[in-house]
Amino acid sequence: MSELYRFGVSLEKDLIKRFDELIEHKNYKNRSEALRDLIREDLVKESWEHDKEVAGAITLIYDHHKRELLNTITCIQHDFQTLIMATQHIHLDHNNCLEILAIKGNARDTQNLVHKLKSIKGIKHCTLSMASTGKDI
Amino acid sequence: MSELYRFGVSLEKDLIKRFDELIEHKNYKNRSEALRDLIREDLVKESWEHDKEVAGAITLIYDHHKRELLNTITCIQHDFQTLIMATQHIHLDHNNCLEILAIKGNARDTQNLVHKLKSIKGIKHCTLSMASTGKDI
Amino acid sequence: MSELYRFGVSLEKDLIKRFDELIEHKNYKNRSEALRDLIREDLVKESWEHDKEVAGAITLIYDHHKRELLNTITCIQHDFQTLIMATQHIHLDHNNCLEILAIKGNARDTQNLVHKLKSIKGIKHCTLSMASTGKDI
Amino acid sequence: MSELYRFGVSLEKDLIKRFDELIEHKNYKNRSEALRDLIREDLVKESWEHDKEVAGAITLIYDHHKRELLNTITCIQHDFQTLIMATQHIHLDHNNCLEILAIKGNARDTQNLVHKLKSIKGIKHCTLSMASTGKDI
Repeated sequence: MSELYRFGVSLEKDLIKRFDELIEHKNYKNRSEALRDLIREDLVKESWEHDKEVAGAITLIYDHHKRELLNTITCIQHDFQTLIMATQHIHLDHNNCLEILAIKGNARDTQNLVHKLKSIKGIKHCTLSMASTGKDI
Repeated sequence: MSELYRFGVSLEKDLIKRFDELIEHKNYKNRSEALRDLIREDLVKESWEHDKEVAGAITLIYDHHKRELLNTITCIQHDFQTLIMATQHIHLDHNNCLEILAIKGNARDTQNLVHKLKSIKGIKHCTLSMASTGKDI
Repeated sequence: MSELYRFGVSLEKDLIKRFDELIEHKNYKNRSEALRDLIREDLVKESWEHDKEVAGAITLIYDHHKRELLNTITCIQHDFQTLIMATQHIHLDHNNCLEILAIKGNARDTQNLVHKLKSIKGIKHCTLSMASTGKDI
Repeated sequence: MSELYRFGVSLEKDLIKRFDELIEHKNYKNRSEALRDLIREDLVKESWEHDKEVAGAITLIYDHHKRELLNTITCIQHDFQTLIMATQHIHLDHNNCLEILAIKGNARDTQNLVHKLKSIKGIKHCTLSMASTGKDI
């Protein structure tokens, strides 16, 4: 846990009034916590744009009845085993699976894995949640 | 122009260090100006989500040779004349036009206009730039 | 698994040429598979906008040393237990945790849970991956 | 205007049923027109990611009373005159201006111009609408 640092900010009065209303609506206890979150989101966005070390989640929706699909997905995951830390599998209904891959590694490699998975016949949806390793934020 | 208001913010030292690097890279003169922009973006996003009064731009790309296209676009624009403040037309090449509609009004009406324009045969691309009327931000 | 349905599409020659190049670059085997994915993404986007039943993942990054944080997160998760199907926890380093919540339920409730979690002091980052229950897509 | 090309697509019956409902809701006359738009959006996204020749619009909201702001904006626009094809200015109210810059050129240069403008004190909001030159789409 990092030491705290205190500094002054000056804003237009109208702006801070509207911001106070917004953060109350979003459940924030105080301005510092709300500003921290805005700053962190900006930093995480930049990590992904500049191909730094990141963490995140890849979310897959697929029908496990599709022939060979489970084998194909498993093979690709093993090719990317340094990137994929763990997976979680949910049986949505008789046919549909939700599988979530926890990722830590390089931003570009993660994007490549997403492209690989997305193009497989039988995978219905594939999204990437761009988070951070938590270091320095 | 609104009066300035000054207040203190406390952040983790690692976080402010990384933020200072980021805002230098983005040409900001000081933290207050960078924080103001993050706050304003958050407020503008919220105005669009909660259907408030907004301003913005709709950008169209189309081939003006398509039969009846110019008439169709003009008719729709007149149906939405209270929303569209002005238009700007650029001849990209012999076939393609870039037309930008300056918008001020209700967020939902603007989205409806975008749907209407996007579905017209001959309009190749239609995007919406979500900005603000500038009041209170 | 749904029966297949075949229909004809007509596109400008230049457009299909560029699309073929793009989908080859993205590893797709054929146009039908690439078009299916574009259609499904459009449908999933619409499910979230119109507050239908959805599935997805919420990704949290936090420092588990923050006082009371683990208790707070666990309490909130129990308040939303009908929405959260399972969680997965990864130890990113000595301080930082990556926790991924698998979600199935109503789109608006999920957004509320995200707001609740995001505003907690100590949660450094919170993102939402918008996926689908897989039904009818 | 490009010649038309016709080909067959096969989709799951459930999927095409839901897509037909969606495109009716979005005012499309037929599937081909809706699919064309999905394909074009995908191509335009790729043009911006791979730094190709693009067109678009930069939307600025600012208070023209801020000292030196008009001069600063005009100077920067002249530095980027090969990129900026035209501008349109709307008086939103006594203080606030909406200015829209029509852009044609390289994707990265456009992003740089956006960073430059965004960081200026007095510019309240700056967004980029990513469109296309219309060639081959």
